[in-house]
Amino acid sequence: MNLQDFSRYKAVARLTSLAGQPHDLAAADGLDPQRVAAYVCSSCGYDLLYATQRVNDAVLDALQELADEAGLVDAFLAMKTGVVINRIDGYASENRQVLHTACRDVFSGNPLEPELTAKSSQELAKLQRFLSDLDNGTIVNAQGQPFTTMVQVGIGGSDLGPRALYLALQRYCRQGRSARFIANVDPDDVAAVLRDLDLSRTLFNIVSKSGTTLETLTNEQLVKAQLLKAGLDPARHMIAVTGESSPMDDVSKYRASFYMYDSIGGRYSATSMVGLVTLGFVLGYEAVRDILAGAYRVDVAAEERDIRRNIPLLLALLGIWNHNFLGCATVAVLPYSQALCRFPAHLQQCDMESNGKSVTREGKNVSWATGPVVWGEPGTNGQHAFYQLIHQGTEIVPVEFIGFRESQHGVDLDVAGTSSQQKLVANMLAQSLALAVGKFDENPARRFSGNRPNSVLIADRLTPESMGALLAMYEHKIAFQGFCWNINSFDQEGVQLGKVLANRLLAIIAEGGNQSQPKETSLHREEAMLIQAGML
Amino acid sequence: MNLQDFSRYKAVARLTSLAGQPHDLAAADGLDPQRVAAYVCSSCGYDLLYATQRVNDAVLDALQELADEAGLVDAFLAMKTGVVINRIDGYASENRQVLHTACRDVFSGNPLEPELTAKSSQELAKLQRFLSDLDNGTIVNAQGQPFTTMVQVGIGGSDLGPRALYLALQRYCRQGRSARFIANVDPDDVAAVLRDLDLSRTLFNIVSKSGTTLETLTNEQLVKAQLLKAGLDPARHMIAVTGESSPMDDVSKYRASFYMYDSIGGRYSATSMVGLVTLGFVLGYEAVRDILAGAYRVDVAAEERDIRRNIPLLLALLGIWNHNFLGCATVAVLPYSQALCRFPAHLQQCDMESNGKSVTREGKNVSWATGPVVWGEPGTNGQHAFYQLIHQGTEIVPVEFIGFRESQHGVDLDVAGTSSQQKLVANMLAQSLALAVGKFDENPARRFSGNRPNSVLIADRLTPESMGALLAMYEHKIAFQGFCWNINSFDQEGVQLGKVLANRLLAIIAEGGNQSQPKETSLHREEAMLIQAGML
Repeated sequence: MNLQDFSRYKAVARLTSLAGQPHDLAAADGLDPQRVAAYVCSSCGYDLLYATQRVNDAVLDALQELADEAGLVDAFLAMKTGVVINRIDGYASENRQVLHTACRDVFSGNPLEPELTAKSSQELAKLQRFLSDLDNGTIVNAQGQPFTTMVQVGIGGSDLGPRALYLALQRYCRQGRSARFIANVDPDDVAAVLRDLDLSRTLFNIVSKSGTTLETLTNEQLVKAQLLKAGLDPARHMIAVTGESSPMDDVSKYRASFYMYDSIGGRYSATSMVGLVTLGFVLGYEAVRDILAGAYRVDVAAEERDIRRNIPLLLALLGIWNHNFLGCATVAVLPYSQALCRFPAHLQQCDMESNGKSVTREGKNVSWATGPVVWGEPGTNGQHAFYQLIHQGTEIVPVEFIGFRESQHGVDLDVAGTSSQQKLVANMLAQSLALAVGKFDENPARRFSGNRPNSVLIADRLTPESMGALLAMYEHKIAFQGFCWNINSFDQEGVQLGKVLANRLLAIIAEGGNQSQPKETSLHREEAMLIQAGML
Repeated sequence: MNLQDFSRYKAVARLTSLAGQPHDLAAADGLDPQRVAAYVCSSCGYDLLYATQRVNDAVLDALQELADEAGLVDAFLAMKTGVVINRIDGYASENRQVLHTACRDVFSGNPLEPELTAKSSQELAKLQRFLSDLDNGTIVNAQGQPFTTMVQVGIGGSDLGPRALYLALQRYCRQGRSARFIANVDPDDVAAVLRDLDLSRTLFNIVSKSGTTLETLTNEQLVKAQLLKAGLDPARHMIAVTGESSPMDDVSKYRASFYMYDSIGGRYSATSMVGLVTLGFVLGYEAVRDILAGAYRVDVAAEERDIRRNIPLLLALLGIWNHNFLGCATVAVLPYSQALCRFPAHLQQCDMESNGKSVTREGKNVSWATGPVVWGEPGTNGQHAFYQLIHQGTEIVPVEFIGFRESQHGVDLDVAGTSSQQKLVANMLAQSLALAVGKFDENPARRFSGNRPNSVLIADRLTPESMGALLAMYEHKIAFQGFCWNINSFDQEGVQLGKVLANRLLAIIAEGGNQSQPKETSLHREEAMLIQAGML
């Protein structure tokens, strides 16, 4: 890979100059039908409408130049072929390949990184047998009854992606199958989930790559205690997804084990066994293949070098334009689909954990903005909530709308001449237009400045395949941005300090009962915090 | 009220100067035990620990000066006593009082705005009778069975606050009672909720102040169609919360009606009938009184003029320090309580719809930043997701942590010497410390700059009363900030343009079938958008 510091690209200088006068969407001719028709990028079943971004052909040309100069597609190919890109030159680091695409490369006759793709195929075959054993009565509870619920116990990457996909595809669940999720170390989370369940018909899927995640191991203990209390054998009700030879890789404790690999980061692991076991349980094996196929299509399409024909690359560059050149601190992802209600939370992790960094791949401090704050809720709900600020606030919030032409359930009704689904999509397009063009009014409180950049990503219907495609589009958007900022998007050193301090506080609490009250002069700030919070 | 433009306050000049060298939390003596002990504000069962904010006594004195100079407490009193503050001088506006506190003033012998408090008491009495009729078998289904589920159909303020409170207090639900919510016009939202329900035992609570909200009326029709399809009489299964004499105020269509009032904005309506009917159904009437009592205590406590003794006022001013003087664009609200999982979404609405404004109370453009982007997810989940950016990203994100010393369920287990609840709180405090003090490391990727401002709000336990208090604290934080920025926090003109455009698009769609394809030259951009999105 031949990445340089962001500030040194010629295209960055050109874009800085262009940003002095960005395209005026609120002008009389700022958004005409020709522009709407021209600024569309179609790929893998999706159309990206970006006429409502503050770009013109000169900006798009400069963004293309940036993509070429930085070699973004070459970096992406390096990632896919297994170059060790999860590293910081000259310093200790994870020093790993980044191969979430390899578990989708199972559709290729000639996979780019054959070793991990072969392992992925093995795990898929194992999953297929496991699912079939559940169906044919080989895997049942002590009474010989089939399992109806799978509870995934995991946190972060072992929770957000799988949960978002489950909610997105819940409509396609097999009769009599459902899933629940436990993540938080908050004991109320476990208690609330377990309260409603028939434990005798439940399988717990414990997911932790290291096999040492504090929250997950604690929750596993809580679950075990409840199973024992109900007179059930934990080993019969638990399966595991973990790294090979982790402390959790133990056939005596789990009914089945699936492997995850070091070269697939947690936040990119939804299409590995981390997501697919639970999704397979509720949706069936065919849907698992469809999710992978959708993602695979995008993995291939994202090799396209023309930014106007590559949705993830274009999303990445439009994001960089808004963030680094127009100065917007956040980006809102607003799906007009209730099924995607937790997809923004997944992206929040995937994006912010990847690109919330301050040092380059060479360990120097960056002098440019890296990842924005990512947030969002489904529309139309948000229209009745935070859209006020997006339209009229002093913070400019770039928006990425996501929508579908058809509903999932097909249960709909015409009210006042249009269906609910038509109302949903019309509202999304109306918001896109309103943010872009604004409106003058004599009453200053009713004035809309417009020029609030946004884009619309739309497909026919949210299915396993289009969900897989959407997931991969955003994964690659994030990777392209990280390459462009010359940061390592694949480590997460920033989560360590909190862990260390939490363990120190817990040690003080655990010893608390044995000690006399420390004198105030010898207090450390950790103890002072605990005392003030009423925990000592 | 005697509010001026924010930029003209003397204290603002002083704070601008102080912001040149904010307190260095990462210095060796930046956060000692004395500071931790001194920077605590205790009120209404909560402790606010703010030693981890970048303030010192000089900044706090200047913030006190700002509060006094702007007359923030006087403005708050004006609001509570019914002065018409929802207005823009010299322009058409809602021109209303702002009286969400009046529905909590039922505990006072001498209410500040007797008329609305009297009406609130009447509605409470009506609710008490309704709940008792549900218990004593007066209100039952056609088979004489009791109702077990209430589905609240509403959006925005008629959804987010009630839903957040329901999830927060779900642990206290009465045996055999539960609630669900339908908000989105997305037909999949309705379908997913109705699929799991026994309609014959379900009451639908339709909530819309105007009685004309598109989403809510559409969803009411979808619900009615499903009831009829199931052979049930809609009038027996529906109740309404609406404005007096709205189109929904119709005894022939609803089994019971409760009123909401123009002087209570949607986003401030959780403690009116908008929230209390469903909460009363699941929690019982005593819990309703407890929620109100908790909020009422804070309503009174927020009259305190000493900022160091007034939690909502101090939260407001610390937020202004971070936003207007230290330049942070967002604020993250991170509850270490799974039960509060949707409280950030409620605050997102309440805060961003209130303070996402660009004109002053006199209709002039502001020249200072108003409301920040508000977002958040529960901890510890977030630690495994977006905290990377909060610790090491280039965007500085001020954090407001919220936690409780005890769990709700009391189902817990000691693992490695501490309970899950202790782990939860220790993690929160550890994050607060880590963000503030940072850590040097030889490896630049493992370096933490610190100086990431945050505070911790902690109480004993999340109960109906402490939930009511927490809600009111944030409502008043938001109001104090709006007063300080001299904006009208109580209108929402910014939501209108999208509605107008959506109706225009829907009219085109509704007529679409009847028209010949329009020639491209005569296209409007609305039609162009519809065509490009594949909707025409």
